[in-house]
Parts: sequence; C-alpha cells; structure tokens
Amino acid sequence: MNPLGPPAPLDPLATDVVGLTRALVDIPSESGAEEALADLVEAALRPLDHLVVERVGNSVVARTDLGRDERVIIAGHLDTVPAADNLPARLEADRLYGLGACDMKGGVAVALRLAATVTAPVRDVTYVFYECEEVEGDRNGLHTIAGRRPELLAADLAILMEPSDAGVEAGCQGVLTADITVRGERAHTARAWRGVNAAHRAAPVLQRLADHTPERVVIDGLEYREGLNAVAVRAGVAGNVVPDTCVITVNARFAPSRSAQEAEAYVRGLFPEREYEVDVTEVVPGALPGLGRQAVASLVGVLGAEPRPKLGWTDVARFASLGTPALNYGPGDPVLAHTAGEYVPLAQLRECEARLRNWLTP
Amino acid sequence: MNPLGPPAPLDPLATDVVGLTRALVDIPSESGAEEALADLVEAALRPLDHLVVERVGNSVVARTDLGRDERVIIAGHLDTVPAADNLPARLEADRLYGLGACDMKGGVAVALRLAATVTAPVRDVTYVFYECEEVEGDRNGLHTIAGRRPELLAADLAILMEPSDAGVEAGCQGVLTADITVRGERAHTARAWRGVNAAHRAAPVLQRLADHTPERVVIDGLEYREGLNAVAVRAGVAGNVVPDTCVITVNARFAPSRSAQEAEAYVRGLFPEREYEVDVTEVVPGALPGLGRQAVASLVGVLGAEPRPKLGWTDVARFASLGTPALNYGPGDPVLAHTAGEYVPLAQLRECEARLRNWLTP
Repeated sequence: MNPLGPPAPLDPLATDVVGLTRALVDIPSESGAEEALADLVEAALRPLDHLVVERVGNSVVARTDLGRDERVIIAGHLDTVPAADNLPARLEADRLYGLGACDMKGGVAVALRLAATVTAPVRDVTYVFYECEEVEGDRNGLHTIAGRRPELLAADLAILMEPSDAGVEAGCQGVLTADITVRGERAHTARAWRGVNAAHRAAPVLQRLADHTPERVVIDGLEYREGLNAVAVRAGVAGNVVPDTCVITVNARFAPSRSAQEAEAYVRGLFPEREYEVDVTEVVPGALPGLGRQAVASLVGVLGAEPRPKLGWTDVARFASLGTPALNYGPGDPVLAHTAGEYVPLAQLRECEARLRNWLTP
Repeated sequence: MNPLGPPAPLDPLATDVVGLTRALVDIPSESGAEEALADLVEAALRPLDHLVVERVGNSVVARTDLGRDERVIIAGHLDTVPAADNLPARLEADRLYGLGACDMKGGVAVALRLAATVTAPVRDVTYVFYECEEVEGDRNGLHTIAGRRPELLAADLAILMEPSDAGVEAGCQGVLTADITVRGERAHTARAWRGVNAAHRAAPVLQRLADHTPERVVIDGLEYREGLNAVAVRAGVAGNVVPDTCVITVNARFAPSRSAQEAEAYVRGLFPEREYEVDVTEVVPGALPGLGRQAVASLVGVLGAEPRPKLGWTDVARFASLGTPALNYGPGDPVLAHTAGEYVPLAQLRECEARLRNWLTP
C-alpha cells in the first residue's frame, strides 16, 4: 500500500508546519485510501486535553468546547488525486514539491498545527479533517458527517483550507458531471461495414468540446471563468470487435449565479438527446461570494487579502447550502492543484499559520 | 464462473452435431477462460482407442496414426468473444442462436463428431481444438503448440473450421493493431485552460478513422475488402482532472497482397509521427488464396463450393507461413461472427459434417 515505507507518527506539537506538510505528503492518501492517514491524524490529536476528538469513517473531527460566543470550522480534506510520479516530497529552495503539497496537505498541516497548539482560542474551533473530497459527492467526508452527525458541522463561519495562494477566495463555481453515450452496432472488424463504430461516432462530441468557448461571469466584481471538459473516454469490447458503445464523461464548471437546473439545461443543449444519450450523474450548485455578509467581510479584513473568485467547486458550497458563510483560505497556488508538478511555497505555509493563529489567540 | 450451472460431460459419439453445438455454446469459454471446455473436450476424446490425445495449455490435440500417405489438420478454436446477453443457446426453427454458435462452436462440433466417429479415415487426421484465437497472437493456442510441439502441426493440408457459410473461403487478410497515443497536459478541471485536454485532441484521430474509405483489392478473382477501426479508446485520470493521455487502439485489416511492412507504412502514413505517437503492437500478414495449388484445388472440388475471399484474419495465415496449404471451411455466416445475434443454420452443421465425413471415409 505504501511504497515509501511505514509512516512515522505525526507530531504536530513538535514539528513545524513545513516538516508537517512534508510528513503528510509522504503518507499516500489517494481518495478511498485515507485510512492510514486518518489513523495518524486521530492518534496525534486524541491525547490533547483541550480537544474532543471523534472519528466518522475516515474523517476526524476535533473541537474545543470552551463555551465561546462564536464557533468557527477550519476544514481540510485528507485525500489527493492519484500520484503522477510525484512522490516522495522534496524540498527545493523555498518550495515543497509533491503529490498533494498544494491540494491540500499544506492547508491540512496548518490546521493540524493550530489544532494542536492553540489550546484556548478566543472562538471555539471545530477542526475537520475529511476523506474523499476529490471524488463523487456522496463519498465526501463532509457529506457523511452531515448525514450521521450534523451537529458537528454547526458553526457561525467555515474556513476551508483549500489552496488560494494565502489569499481569500470567495464563493465557488458549481460542478456538473455527465456521461454522454454514443451508440453504434457491434461487428467483427473484418466486416466492419456491417456494424457502426461508436468510437468513430464520438469524434464530433470530442470536437464540440474542443471547440467550445466557456463563458466568463462577473459577480460582486469577481470574474468566474467556466469550463467544460471530457475527463474520461471509454470504448472497447475486444480487439476484433467494432465497439457498439463509447462513453464520454464530461465535467462542467459553472458560475455560482447559475442554478443546477440552468447548468444541466446548458449541457443538454450542447448534446441534444436526439443525437446522444446524456446522463447527468452529479450536479451541485456553486456558492455566491457573499462579500456583503458581515461575517465574511470581517474575516476578510483580518486576513488582510483582497478577495478573488474561486473557480473550482469546493465544500464552501456545501456550507453555503446549510446557511453557513464560508470561504477558502489556504497556502498554495490553486492553479497547481492536480498537476504533476504541484508545490506549496514555504512562506505561505508560515503566513497562513501565523494569521489564523493571530485571529484565534487573545 | 459459469452462470448456466455445472456443464455435463460432452458425448460426441451419442450426440448429433446440433446437440453437440448447443452443449458447446452453453459452456462459456471467453478467451483466457477455456479451461473447463478444454477439460471436457479432452475427457470426451481420451477414451477413444483410435486417437492419440495430448494437452498443450488449454488446447487439445487428437490424432489418428494409421500410417496413411497424407495427413490433414482439422482445427477449431474453443474460445469466444465476451458474451453480449446471448447465452444460453436457443433453437429457433432451423437455427441455433447463442454466443459462439457461429464463431465457431458449430465448426468445433463438426470436428468433434468426426474425431469421435471416423475411426479409420483414408488420410490421417490431426484434430486441433485450441485456445485464445480471439486475442493477441502470442496467446493463440496454435502459436503455443508451434512453440512447444511443432511436430503436432506438420501436415499436407489444414482445414480451419472458421465460419464460411459451409463454403470454401480462401486465403485471409492480414491484421495490424496499433496504439495511437495523443498527449496533452494535466490540469484541474476548474482551470482547464492551464492544461491541454488529450481527449479533446483525439477528436481528429477518430474523425480521420470515420472518414477513411478502405480499399478493395482483387487477387485470383477474389475481392478482399480492407478495414480500419478504432476498437478501444481510453482516457481518464480522475473526475476533476483534464486527462493528459488518450490512447486509441486501431485494428486494420489488409489484403494478403500487402506485406506487413506495407501495412505498417500505410497506417503510419495516416497518423504522422509529428502529430501522434503510433505504436504498432501486432502485425501479421494474411495468406494469398493460392487457388492454383494442387492440394487446395482438389479439396475445393470435393467440397463442391465456389471459393470466396476470406476477409478476416484466420490461422490459415499461420499455416501458410509454415508452408502448409490451408483454407477455411465451416458452418455459419462469417458476417454474424462477433455479433450479439450470431447463429448457425442447422443444415450447414449437418452439411459440413457429411461432406468432410465423405472425404475422410473409404
């Protein structure tokens, strides 16, 4: 399971945020395989007297219970996309490279450091380290917690430690996933003219995606840039057989001003049912930036950064749908998320830790 | 393994060719999973005194050894392509439907009947029931036998019981398989413009295949119709990731007058290296019809059918490369091979058995 050898325990009390990020990167935790990492996070926090620690699946929730007027959630996901020859972590000058360094083990390291060391915060804090953020929404750890223990997610404000270049990224785009199925008819390849090749018939679908120009939508002065991509193509029966089915999985990102219904109609309009079968497998709306809301505005002031639009879907939308204001604030350039060369600047790790520590400490 | 229940023993002495075909269809034997069927074939033939039976992998070779002047091979493959909701077998009027009924358990049933019942043929016969014909050539049972026990394949003439509508199909086309890899660059789908979508870039490859018009080549008065098909398309890293690779597996059928080198140059010409990576994974030349050869001409006369061109690649080419004349002669319409609705006409089963029995009997 772990080509890097058995991981050592995490020690967020004695390890600085850089060392902690490095340790986290070196514990593989591809979506669905977070158990080892969740065990280590739980083991690191459970002995601490100021925290109540609970485990839900492979997510870990640790919270202070000091009776403060306000409660804030600080959350980060434990999982990463699949490795791309980018393990183990390596330090190079002022950057830490490696799978998940940017998305988002750097943010998780900041949260772990705060959880372990800020023993009496001025506002109660619920730290949430959760599983399966990079995959289907119904496997997402926050979804699981909301189903089994919704009271753990009650808060006045949520901060997601998603990479945002140590700035505040407000709102988030919605995401839609659809399978477009192109049909044909099987035949032996030696007499292919007796069948219809579904893979060949998929060419116009891929070309339409290639030719598509996504829109740009401005909300609260922030520009949301949409996207439409094939993320998977699957066809093939056997080496001698003209395939009768080709399935193209499409991932769409849409501005938070569009509803789920509008997004679905948009995608279906591009691929009319009379030509293709379109099966929308997931559609989750985004979250409006809500810069006018008091709770968001005040935190933005403290963090000292100009808000930018969040283009990726993040669990900000999940909190927004519960009525909880939420924003993204974390180390790492979001542009690097899911790239083989992702890294996190050491200075941003330290800055995020320092600013949040300042906000939580008397 | 077998959704139809445990198979009963085969009894080619007491079962007619229709019943035997039906029994064979109902024993699943997708390529790579022929063991159960090979066991039953071996068990049916081993007790017969007039046959020397040997097992090579999941292929079964049974031969007479009467010291005749001439030896003929009668061969059929045990495997089928994957099921397409076409099991178990069903009789409907004068046809037997089901996976492999046409390609080629009907032919196997004819050979099994002859092996069991023609105890003193006028020419020695080597019956070969072999595995993995529908997959890569290096897994093919004849290839395995040629490697381990080449003497078992020595003969004056080979008859492959491939479906040919109870007529003689002469020669066979060559086949080439190539992987065409389209490269891109990974990125998070929320910022897709930072990457290059390899699946989108694959559209022109599929369109070129869709637009391609295969050639028709005439040899010895027979028309060979070529073909070029995508048989598999694979792209996809994760649901949130712009894929950096799309691999299209192409299957080409080429006339037996083209060499392997010419076929490869033809395919590479369609997909120039400066645009795509082309990896030719298999190329096997066809076999010229050889209608002028004495051995072929005499058998064709006895079988009483006008020769037609064989479009699919068959193991005729394997024998041709060993210098052994070979032809296809078997029940079932080759057009139906690898289709979900394949069937074999009962009359053809009986005709093939009768004509070969006549040829082998004093």
